[in-house]
Amino acid sequence: MLRIAVLGCGRIGQMHAANVARHPRSTLAAVYDVHKPSAERIAHDLGVKAAASAEEIFASKDVDAVLIATATPTHADYIEMAIAAGKAVLCEKPIDLSLARVESCAAKIAGTSIPVQLGFNRRYDPGHAAARAALVAGEIGDLHQVIITSRDPGIPPRSYLEAAGGLFRDMTIHDFDLARFMLGEEPTEVFAIGGALIDPALGAALNEIDSAMFILRTASGKQCHINNSRTAVYGYDQRVELMGSAGMIISDNRKPHEMRRYSSKSVEASEPYQFFFLERYLEAFMAEIDGFVDCVEKGAAPLASFEDGRRALILAEAAYISMREGRIVKVSEVNA
Amino acid sequence: MLRIAVLGCGRIGQMHAANVARHPRSTLAAVYDVHKPSAERIAHDLGVKAAASAEEIFASKDVDAVLIATATPTHADYIEMAIAAGKAVLCEKPIDLSLARVESCAAKIAGTSIPVQLGFNRRYDPGHAAARAALVAGEIGDLHQVIITSRDPGIPPRSYLEAAGGLFRDMTIHDFDLARFMLGEEPTEVFAIGGALIDPALGAALNEIDSAMFILRTASGKQCHINNSRTAVYGYDQRVELMGSAGMIISDNRKPHEMRRYSSKSVEASEPYQFFFLERYLEAFMAEIDGFVDCVEKGAAPLASFEDGRRALILAEAAYISMREGRIVKVSEVNA
Amino acid sequence: MLRIAVLGCGRIGQMHAANVARHPRSTLAAVYDVHKPSAERIAHDLGVKAAASAEEIFASKDVDAVLIATATPTHADYIEMAIAAGKAVLCEKPIDLSLARVESCAAKIAGTSIPVQLGFNRRYDPGHAAARAALVAGEIGDLHQVIITSRDPGIPPRSYLEAAGGLFRDMTIHDFDLARFMLGEEPTEVFAIGGALIDPALGAALNEIDSAMFILRTASGKQCHINNSRTAVYGYDQRVELMGSAGMIISDNRKPHEMRRYSSKSVEASEPYQFFFLERYLEAFMAEIDGFVDCVEKGAAPLASFEDGRRALILAEAAYISMREGRIVKVSEVNA
Amino acid sequence: MLRIAVLGCGRIGQMHAANVARHPRSTLAAVYDVHKPSAERIAHDLGVKAAASAEEIFASKDVDAVLIATATPTHADYIEMAIAAGKAVLCEKPIDLSLARVESCAAKIAGTSIPVQLGFNRRYDPGHAAARAALVAGEIGDLHQVIITSRDPGIPPRSYLEAAGGLFRDMTIHDFDLARFMLGEEPTEVFAIGGALIDPALGAALNEIDSAMFILRTASGKQCHINNSRTAVYGYDQRVELMGSAGMIISDNRKPHEMRRYSSKSVEASEPYQFFFLERYLEAFMAEIDGFVDCVEKGAAPLASFEDGRRALILAEAAYISMREGRIVKVSEVNA
Repeated sequence: MLRIAVLGCGRIGQMHAANVARHPRSTLAAVYDVHKPSAERIAHDLGVKAAASAEEIFASKDVDAVLIATATPTHADYIEMAIAAGKAVLCEKPIDLSLARVESCAAKIAGTSIPVQLGFNRRYDPGHAAARAALVAGEIGDLHQVIITSRDPGIPPRSYLEAAGGLFRDMTIHDFDLARFMLGEEPTEVFAIGGALIDPALGAALNEIDSAMFILRTASGKQCHINNSRTAVYGYDQRVELMGSAGMIISDNRKPHEMRRYSSKSVEASEPYQFFFLERYLEAFMAEIDGFVDCVEKGAAPLASFEDGRRALILAEAAYISMREGRIVKVSEVNA
Repeated sequence: MLRIAVLGCGRIGQMHAANVARHPRSTLAAVYDVHKPSAERIAHDLGVKAAASAEEIFASKDVDAVLIATATPTHADYIEMAIAAGKAVLCEKPIDLSLARVESCAAKIAGTSIPVQLGFNRRYDPGHAAARAALVAGEIGDLHQVIITSRDPGIPPRSYLEAAGGLFRDMTIHDFDLARFMLGEEPTEVFAIGGALIDPALGAALNEIDSAMFILRTASGKQCHINNSRTAVYGYDQRVELMGSAGMIISDNRKPHEMRRYSSKSVEASEPYQFFFLERYLEAFMAEIDGFVDCVEKGAAPLASFEDGRRALILAEAAYISMREGRIVKVSEVNA
Repeated sequence: MLRIAVLGCGRIGQMHAANVARHPRSTLAAVYDVHKPSAERIAHDLGVKAAASAEEIFASKDVDAVLIATATPTHADYIEMAIAAGKAVLCEKPIDLSLARVESCAAKIAGTSIPVQLGFNRRYDPGHAAARAALVAGEIGDLHQVIITSRDPGIPPRSYLEAAGGLFRDMTIHDFDLARFMLGEEPTEVFAIGGALIDPALGAALNEIDSAMFILRTASGKQCHINNSRTAVYGYDQRVELMGSAGMIISDNRKPHEMRRYSSKSVEASEPYQFFFLERYLEAFMAEIDGFVDCVEKGAAPLASFEDGRRALILAEAAYISMREGRIVKVSEVNA
Repeated sequence: MLRIAVLGCGRIGQMHAANVARHPRSTLAAVYDVHKPSAERIAHDLGVKAAASAEEIFASKDVDAVLIATATPTHADYIEMAIAAGKAVLCEKPIDLSLARVESCAAKIAGTSIPVQLGFNRRYDPGHAAARAALVAGEIGDLHQVIITSRDPGIPPRSYLEAAGGLFRDMTIHDFDLARFMLGEEPTEVFAIGGALIDPALGAALNEIDSAMFILRTASGKQCHINNSRTAVYGYDQRVELMGSAGMIISDNRKPHEMRRYSSKSVEASEPYQFFFLERYLEAFMAEIDGFVDCVEKGAAPLASFEDGRRALILAEAAYISMREGRIVKVSEVNA
């Protein structure tokens, strides 16, 4: 049983803490949050200790590993501290909003053999993972096109958006990573457009967009499209399509259950898709923990690594340049 | 081009006349209806002659074959007249409501080499036919269970019901035939229940039922369930399921098109199923004509024969005994 | 947190023990099995105590409730002992293979206010439950027909079959209960056929069947069909269809994930359905525990009660009479 | 009955001739092809006259309208001749591969009240048309994103490709038109990438691509993605997705029938999608004729007009500039 402490007790930290607690291969060692009452509430609910500080966790010999789910600006610091303390790391995305900080963190932990896994949950989703496995097994021949649809069920509150670092770094970063995971080679060019179609006023106030489209291309010519929206009223929309010389694979949305309605108005009508990431990627979050335990206990390489986090951020930066300049941008143009 | 005359210009006769006219392998030679204005209207629309009598059609040397879509009580007479006149026959179901009359007709036309095809359209439906083909090809191993769902979109007018001969002879007869087609061997036992669930008052007035369930079994033990309803508000419901030792095949409902809606209320909602038999079995009706031309021109055996019509009626009779007596009835108990 | 002890550490007991351990509203108090090493293995894995006897559990003041997952012949005894000891009961189906024993148990515990819940997992399945809720909400008007498809993925070992008490009491009992749950009124008549289609030799040796079909009818005339097979090679097949005057609802099979394949051979091909009840009804088993905690902590009536277990068994008995005698059997004909 | 002559008896001309002949509102007046035996064969099969020249058709008083399905370079000439002769025109896409020639043709026929309809079949497809209708009815609120998937089942022969004018003018032109149809406002910017992923050698030899992706944007900011491939081995892939503030609509692929297979390998597997445009858009081609008859007989405006043909070609030209220059191109940059 891997003893994992969870740093950060916000929405996603709470979920991770509960998952760690009930995962058959891990135990929850402790929780910490800068807002003490949050940590105490979770600690009480799950029957563990709320640490007084992150340092206390890094120093504890009852902690094998940390799951970092704190605010983004603290991720890189905590990664560095964890590695220094010899604790394995499972860190939520993004590593940092600043590519320079990501690079400096990378330099600091270079050469460590301690596992650092990134929270790119899509890679662990049973449907997406099966799609990737079928692709790798050669079922669709040579991959030609990847289509990723990624739409949140509703626009987040203004306070969230102000801290999120922009759509591409906050939301699309998952899709950039998924594109890399599926393409099997690095995208070398990125094109992006964006707009504030859902809430133009908010968009103007924050200089932020809520709808976007992307085209990526790899050196060998593989093509990838991503589309994003902050408001899919029909539920969290998460689809991946892989099209190749010998066939196609689609990893489609998951419904809460398989009940369908038939009336004089419509047939085969299902409940809206699973509300948001906590529901949609529940299995993926559990599989993340499983994969993480494998990294620590069996020396497996993380399916989603620090380097994957860095490369996804570079694609986000390239996309921002593209959106500003109205042209396809070479990934090699991006400087930290 | 096979020159086909259509007898009967009611709802289904009109459809057949139009289909014969536009089918690439047939031409509409003439139409006839006991109600002259009906025949004349169709004749005018399709640019053919309205015959003054059925006899005129049987006597015409410009007619190769007849499609009988008149009122049920005339079917057997017209079949006999057609065979006497050397015209091939495509006759709507049922042959007659009286098994005795069917037997006497069978006796009269026994030994003829002139094709007599029955209008069991399900056999010609692309989905059902593909299911049968896959079954015959061994794809699901030994067949164990057949489930037939057959529900009309709405209860017909009282006048129709008064002449229809009862649900089992009018509606289920298609399903009895489909059961035989799929089972690949004769059902030897029949069990049936029925009730007037949709319109109990009408049921009481006519001593008629609108909802029914059946279980059939063959000599080798294959099991078949049929369910019927006169009111599927979500559209004409026509499904067949074949379950075997190595798999299952379902021939499902056809939608008018593949447009689906996604909202905050439901996802994947389609338009109701195709309204009724004219829409759902349009391709089947055209394939019926194609098969009929093959019978006449190439000497093919009808996929749905007079004997199939006779046997389906026997199953209906067995079902009536079962419903009355509350027990499983041997098909061999039925006497004409 | 409800402290639940699990009696029986076979396949289903193991699963229940793990579920109780990870359910947020329950803790696993202890486990017991007549085969001590089985209990000790589970106890070790889940970090609890293996009780030396069932009596030890009933006597323990650290146990609030028991989940009975032992061999069927012990169920009724343990229910009686639990009630005598003041422990709430969640008991796997069936209560007993003998209706007389069920009746004597009922008499013994009559009048108790201690909750006794039956393990009819279908009632707790999210899809089936949503279907029932939509029905109760009036979405499909008056219910006319219920179709239950229930097929296991493979024939169990001979040793299992020898002790199982016959297909109707072992497997169909779930479907009889589900029929009652959906019909909303008692079936008053039962018709059944069965056969050994998958393994005739085994069927002959054990005088057992592996494929069956049923028709049930309620006093008001509602119709219900059930079909069973021990061998759905395409995965555990668990469907419910509710057809009414204003629409239809289907609770369909659940796939392991939503990945679909498209090739030159076929399109929209998914992985086989979830393997068996441990996978298919995982959410239902967890919801069972949730409902059980509500019974104990909030005084809720069990969604699946002892009486439901008794009535389902009566339907099984009626079905056996029907199969033997080839006629529809009144439920009132069944004597304990 | 509108008397329509068909010019061009190649693959698509043959189909149009047969459709005109069997359409209830039109008759086939004559056929013509520069290759006389082709015309004579069709004329024989359909029982009409093969005209000796196009001029003969334009001069005939037994012809109300012409359907132009000849080689692309003749389209504009025939349109001009038809208008001069007072014949209504239904012309296959594209009008011409040269935008200059399209502009000169537009100038020549400017002001005519004689209907000119373009063969943009997608607009007439029942599923796509229903999607458009639901959008216009406000069902999904404000439109934000359009996703068009358009993939041919196989790469055409080299000879076809040499004359086709390039992927964007030959194939994508349908999608550019469909984008305009769905967006409800003009795209003002176009971005495109392309590659020869299926057959790089052929691509190099012809300087042609077989796979492409596009992003379009309108003045109000609506976003549209199109993807194209010449090789969807799973069948002709034609999907449209409309995503808006209040919901989503998908017009999905149509299968030949609704038979699904269930085995130990996969479930819900259907036959590959309808092979190619003759099958997939059969209903659309018939609806085209219906719409055309409405134009002539009722003075309706064509759903797909000459101007629509011109604007789609402009988008193709903008896409070529974009692909060459690696930047988003304003549609206003395109000069004839």
